[in-house]
Parts: sequence; C-alpha cells; structure tokens
Amino acid sequence: MRIRLDIAYDGTHFAGWARQPGLRTVQGALETALQRVLRSPAAPRLVVAGRTDAGVHATGQVAHVDVAPDDIERLHRPRDTRPPLDQLAHRLRGVLGAYSDVTVRAATAAPEGFDARFSPVWRRYVYRIADAASGYDPLRRHDTTSVRASLDAAAMDAAASSLRGLHDFAAYCRPREGATTIRTLLDYTWRRLPDGVLEAEVRADAFCHSMVRALVGVCAAIGEGRLDVEDAARLRDERTRSSAFPVLAARGLTLAEVGYPASDLLAERAAQTRARRELG
Amino acid sequence: MRIRLDIAYDGTHFAGWARQPGLRTVQGALETALQRVLRSPAAPRLVVAGRTDAGVHATGQVAHVDVAPDDIERLHRPRDTRPPLDQLAHRLRGVLGAYSDVTVRAATAAPEGFDARFSPVWRRYVYRIADAASGYDPLRRHDTTSVRASLDAAAMDAAASSLRGLHDFAAYCRPREGATTIRTLLDYTWRRLPDGVLEAEVRADAFCHSMVRALVGVCAAIGEGRLDVEDAARLRDERTRSSAFPVLAARGLTLAEVGYPASDLLAERAAQTRARRELG
Repeated sequence: MRIRLDIAYDGTHFAGWARQPGLRTVQGALETALQRVLRSPAAPRLVVAGRTDAGVHATGQVAHVDVAPDDIERLHRPRDTRPPLDQLAHRLRGVLGAYSDVTVRAATAAPEGFDARFSPVWRRYVYRIADAASGYDPLRRHDTTSVRASLDAAAMDAAASSLRGLHDFAAYCRPREGATTIRTLLDYTWRRLPDGVLEAEVRADAFCHSMVRALVGVCAAIGEGRLDVEDAARLRDERTRSSAFPVLAARGLTLAEVGYPASDLLAERAAQTRARRELG
Repeated sequence: MRIRLDIAYDGTHFAGWARQPGLRTVQGALETALQRVLRSPAAPRLVVAGRTDAGVHATGQVAHVDVAPDDIERLHRPRDTRPPLDQLAHRLRGVLGAYSDVTVRAATAAPEGFDARFSPVWRRYVYRIADAASGYDPLRRHDTTSVRASLDAAAMDAAASSLRGLHDFAAYCRPREGATTIRTLLDYTWRRLPDGVLEAEVRADAFCHSMVRALVGVCAAIGEGRLDVEDAARLRDERTRSSAFPVLAARGLTLAEVGYPASDLLAERAAQTRARRELG
C-alpha cells in the first residue's frame, strides 16, 4: 500500500532533502525513523514532491512510501483506539524526538494513482526578508534573510507581477543537463506583513534549480533601487543568467504547499496510463 | 546622559538576563558589546525592565545605560549622516554580529526621570503552546511549548478572565524573601491563532517570580480537562502553592512589551522626588 506523508522541517541543520552518504539529510532522517517504526530489514524509500536544497525549510512538504499492509497492521496495540496510520505518524514523531527539527504532520492512505513526485500540479514557496524598516527579530532568524537596506515592497510586487505566466525562465535557473527551463509562474507576490517582514509567495507548476532564490533576488535588487521594475521581465527575456542580481540565501526559503489533483482525476489518469500500456 | 535601549533576544542559549560569572547571559553579551563600541575602560552597567529567567525570550525588552556625552560624540564619523544614537544601535548590531540571538532594535535619549526598571506601569508577556490540534511546527520550536493533548481554548480563556484584577497571587508565585505577591493582573486572554497555535497574552503592573509560567500552567491543566474553569480563581484564593497544575517551560515565554508613563508624567514624578528629598 502507498502512504502519503505530510512533512515539515527546519532546514538549517540539514544538507538538504536528498539522502547523501555521511551527511544529515531530511530523507535520511525520515527513512531511518520509518525503518525503526516499521521494523523493516531495509530502510523504506521515500519519493518526495520537492527535493529542497541545503538550508531550505518546509511547512508543507509531501512524500510517499510503499509498504506492505502487514507492516501497518503490526503497529496496532491492544486498547489503542487510534487509526493505524495516525498511529504511524504518532510513532514517527516519537522516534524523531521532542522538539525535533523535522516532523511528520500526518500519514494518510494515498489515493489510487498518487505519486508525490509526479502528480503535483503546482508547488508554492514562501520567502521572508527582514529589511531596515522591519528590524531584525532574533526569534525568526532561522527562516528569514536579513538585509541592511530598506526595500520598496510596492516596486517588488510590481516586478513580481510582471514575471507571471508561461515563459522560458533560463535567466532565473541554474543550468542542468536536459532539464527544461520553460515553466508557468502561476502566482508571484510581495507584501509587508503586520510585523514589518517582507514576504513573497511564489507558485508554479514546477521550478528549475535555484529558481525561487533567483526570482526573489531580482526583486530584492529592484526593492533596493539597484534595478528598475521593468528589468525583471527584460532580464527574463534575455534567457541567459545575469550578474545584475543575487541568488538569495536558502535561509529565507520555505516550501509551503504542494497542489495535487482531486482523487477522481488521479484515478482516471492512472487508468489511462494502464490502458495505454496494455495497448502498447 | 541616559540612553534607552530597545532589545530583542532568543533566550534559548542564554542563562537568562542577569550577568553571572562564567555563564552566557543577555546582560553580559550587551554590556560587553557596549564596552567595545564605546571603548570604555569598564563595561557600562545596564538596568533592565524585566530580569527574564534562563530560556525566556524577548521581543520588547527595555534597558537603560548611563554614559558620558563624550562617549556618544566620539562615535561620529565624517560623512556619516546617521544621528549619533542610531549610529550607536547600528554599531552594537555590528558587534553582536549577523543573525545573532540578541539585538538592539533602537537606542534613544531617555526622557527626564526615566528608569527602565522602576518607571514601568505594566509588562506584557506572550506564551505559545502547540497542541494536538495545532500540530508541531519545527520552525517555531524555539519559542513554542509543545503538549500532546488537545486543549480547549475557550475554557482556558474563561479561566484566564476569572484571574484578572488586584489579588494576592502567592499561589502562582515562587516565594522570595520580602517580595510582595499582591499584583494587578490587567489582562489575561487565550486564543487560537490562524496557524492553530494557542497564544496567551498576560499583562500586569509587575510579576512575581515564575508567575506567568504558573498562570499559563493552571490554564493548560484546565484546557486539558484536568481542572475546572472555576479552579483557577479558587486555587488563587487559597494563596498557597499547589501541585494541581504545572509551571510551564520557559521555552514558550516571550516578554513582548513594557509600558512606560508619558514623558511629562515621568518629568513630574522626578521633580516630586527631588522636592521630597530637599524637604527631608
């Protein structure tokens, strides 16, 4: 059976999502916890929606894992009224420990045809910047990038707005062999929160490598007055990387949400794929 | 001249506000930074509004320091357009370092008669609890206490409300020789924030030792159903410490704001004190 895990983490002390030998990664920590809770001989493999880089956080990460139904039934304890998958999430949190920097918010049965990596229709990220106007809050230093200048939120939001739509975002991507840089930027906004911090929301069908950090970088340069509002779309249309703006730090970046199709649509897609295979 | 400093810190890695030999304290860190910036032979002494315990945070702490006017004038650099006290705050932030767990938000000239410790008319604290309903957010683990149960926010708020007013709070104080336990609890509320976390706001003229953590402890026991709403006021009126409720962890507690009288009132009070001294 396939299980969907909803996951949150503070990325500060992780070398990113993806398992790497000798490094502490989110995938590694969760797979080890799963192995302990399920008492499997080998660590179960997680498939994730967003392979976040070192230092990037998540409040709404999603992964799936395939397990034998027996493994879940074995979790049941006499007098435990919790449904088995709630029990799984509860045990995982127990193994990860109190006040851990990674947690499993929920474990649920994945609908027919669900794939954490290939099913998403969009991903939404949040980026936080504290500037001279907002002041620096030590309690939020782990997920907020600090800059010395005062930023013009209205100019940043106007620039963000001009970047939306279906475009080649090569100018805002770190090049990777064979990966497309054509993406649909569904939403991109900047606003000042009540506490003064500047927050971006960025939503796209998918992102190429370091794309969010480049998109917030160009807007920060515009907010500082080093670039004009029009430069955001102009640089994008040049389709080559530019040194006119920085790629901002991972510290301020959080994967907030992953959008999946409704269950009936997922099942329909899965049926179509099966039919195609049988015809082929 | 007397300078007012507005201060914020993440208390996690501090042994509290008060300077102690061999321990890292907020007072120690700030006095060392002041000595470096002012190049004084001895560390200037800070007087603070709230001597917070180990692990307690602050977003709105206030302290004062007395310095020679020369010390401030010496900070001026040619071509620097910043007012001298803004320069002081800026230099202190520089010495404390980027992404420090303590910061000086502002330095301003203290009004006539201002004393950070003795002038306040109230202090306001915030306490954050994540329960089963809110879920656990690793990014806020530093300033949020986590409990396994689901808490009844309405019952907690009703109990909080019943505690307000001028009372002997000995039942909610750790005893200290000679210290009064009669306080005016001006505000005490509980509500669930949009992200699901339970937040208390507690405001009083002053607090006796560990009072906020006992006041939130009794309400947490009520929210869990281990005590009734009426027990909060009943236990208070017994005026002795009880083991019926816990004193909650420092982790969830933040000093949010200190209320001072208006400047003309401070000046008037100072004049009265001087007149009394001259008469005596």
